[in-house]
Amino acid sequence: MKVDGAAYRTIWPVRDQNGLEGGVVEIIDQTLLPHEFKVIQLKSLEDAATAISVMQVRGAPLIGATAAYGVALAMANGASDADFDAAYDTLLATRPTAINLKWALDEARKTLMPLDVADRHAASLKLAAGICDEDAENCHSIGKHGAKIIADIYEANGKQGPVNVLTHCNAGWLATVDWGTALAPVYVAHEAGIPVHVWVDETRPRNQGASLSAWELGHHGVPHTVIVDNVGGHLMQHGMVDICITGTDRTAANGDVCNKIGTYLKALAAFDNDIPFYVGLPYSTIDWTIHDGVRDIPIEQRDATEVTEMTGRTSSGEIATVSIVAEGSPAANYAFDVTPARLVTGLITERGVAKASTEGLLDLYPERR
Amino acid sequence: MKVDGAAYRTIWPVRDQNGLEGGVVEIIDQTLLPHEFKVIQLKSLEDAATAISVMQVRGAPLIGATAAYGVALAMANGASDADFDAAYDTLLATRPTAINLKWALDEARKTLMPLDVADRHAASLKLAAGICDEDAENCHSIGKHGAKIIADIYEANGKQGPVNVLTHCNAGWLATVDWGTALAPVYVAHEAGIPVHVWVDETRPRNQGASLSAWELGHHGVPHTVIVDNVGGHLMQHGMVDICITGTDRTAANGDVCNKIGTYLKALAAFDNDIPFYVGLPYSTIDWTIHDGVRDIPIEQRDATEVTEMTGRTSSGEIATVSIVAEGSPAANYAFDVTPARLVTGLITERGVAKASTEGLLDLYPERR
Repeated sequence: MKVDGAAYRTIWPVRDQNGLEGGVVEIIDQTLLPHEFKVIQLKSLEDAATAISVMQVRGAPLIGATAAYGVALAMANGASDADFDAAYDTLLATRPTAINLKWALDEARKTLMPLDVADRHAASLKLAAGICDEDAENCHSIGKHGAKIIADIYEANGKQGPVNVLTHCNAGWLATVDWGTALAPVYVAHEAGIPVHVWVDETRPRNQGASLSAWELGHHGVPHTVIVDNVGGHLMQHGMVDICITGTDRTAANGDVCNKIGTYLKALAAFDNDIPFYVGLPYSTIDWTIHDGVRDIPIEQRDATEVTEMTGRTSSGEIATVSIVAEGSPAANYAFDVTPARLVTGLITERGVAKASTEGLLDLYPERR
Repeated sequence: MKVDGAAYRTIWPVRDQNGLEGGVVEIIDQTLLPHEFKVIQLKSLEDAATAISVMQVRGAPLIGATAAYGVALAMANGASDADFDAAYDTLLATRPTAINLKWALDEARKTLMPLDVADRHAASLKLAAGICDEDAENCHSIGKHGAKIIADIYEANGKQGPVNVLTHCNAGWLATVDWGTALAPVYVAHEAGIPVHVWVDETRPRNQGASLSAWELGHHGVPHTVIVDNVGGHLMQHGMVDICITGTDRTAANGDVCNKIGTYLKALAAFDNDIPFYVGLPYSTIDWTIHDGVRDIPIEQRDATEVTEMTGRTSSGEIATVSIVAEGSPAANYAFDVTPARLVTGLITERGVAKASTEGLLDLYPERR
């Protein structure tokens, strides 16, 4: 999607002077957004692992793509089975919740292990590029399926005013390779000329809504308003939200959705006010081994300083971190919650919209029966 | 309650060298908390109005008490009917949602208007002191009634571990003259030796939880943990919350509760997980003229900079404000929401616990039938 008028993806390989890929991958350092747009280079497995763990890249699909390139960066320096296993373990340890991470690493194992060691580096690069292209295509498909729902609401409202979409966290193009998951329907609808306005949840503690979703919507020209996470229920009570769309970090086989902490609260409010609550996801976020997401998906706890401190730009333009909690008070930082399938109107996938249930998912993915 | 071991109220008149009250009132400047504990003086009607509007004092009961002292400060400089009307209008305009503000001003009108002009200043001082004493007593009573509920939970849990209370915003002693409303049961239970732990919602955008509730609980020695507003649902899903208690800025006659934005979302989560959701309130927050709070209580919108900027302490100890939203992105700032009575387990008042309904409230306040 667009930054200052130019089209970008979130991750891409750099070609050397001979036009060959392999040694270096570039990403947008998302920890600096929205205050600075900076492209940085990943040159090693360690760079890739760090980029995931400190959240220079984040979002389930982009984490998967970065892990695939992380394997490729590792294979450049040695591609034995032991080298692969070490890379697999290092990358898997970076973020425990995102299922795409394991999915991408398992794809790499399946693809590379049968090959001669000498062929593994080239194959890993090809795999990573393929994962990126497939993610962008899948997200575009999610966008097209979801945009139909937005168009239907616009029709049902008598084409009066914009369709008000509420989203939580950032599941826009910055969370994927391109297009996004939750925001892909918004972008496709916007490009089709349907008026859309997005309520952007700030998304404490890391503020991915206020810093990333607002930034990417603004750069792409989509009308939006930032609200604190507490506001959505009030807006829904008063008819100011037509549809909620969020992403998911892991989707259980029964349709339970593990997403950024606070998603569950918005789903409850949508349900209470009879507002459709959709989740956009590529198939790679589905964990077919989990049949009760609330019970069985492990929830990552992150450092308490994400709660007790806030980073932003001072009036003189510097980036500063301030402490915002009473001194000596402890803080807890649960990063995700699970929204039970009963609160989810539908799952918007690259194949179409599924009911949030085991049967609904199996109807779309019959090869999993 | 206690600050560094010394007992404080949130507002008190200063005695001059002759031991007389009248010219000056002192408050804790709550905009500086948790970073600085500073007592400031109010010397005029304008000082009192500013203290309310910039939130040096906040919380429904304390706003009422400050308004009463604001009238007294005005009457010191002239106590004609016109002087009173001007003071009434100035103070009423400071915060549109808090019902106690109008309640205290109407009490003043009722008390002062029948008197000779010469007697009004002394009477207004006496009224303000009476409102403060009554508020402290009422809050202590709320604490005693609520502490019984906490004690019952402790018994029901087999006296295993602390009772986990979740609260939103600050309805502690800083929001009242003393004791608090939502936190009064916590303080009374704590002093009775019942182990209590409080999950403190940060409460964006003004962070009254992280800055005020955490500060006052810490100073009084009550175990607590700060969480972002998104976390409560997850904790309730996993059995980590035994009871929710919040305050209210205005309670409709049907039991609907208008409180800090985001309260409704916590009530939905409590309902979904079968966790009791109580609201602590003195009778002065009840608006007997409103019978559908969701429809009829006006919701204050505040400045968007409360959302887009965050103030805190830098590592070098200075207070700094940083911008945290993508540049150019608009923000909306709704300050309150209304929790429908159907989600409220009970209203803890100074007279006891009422069902959140017209009948429940009228049973406790039969003089309103």
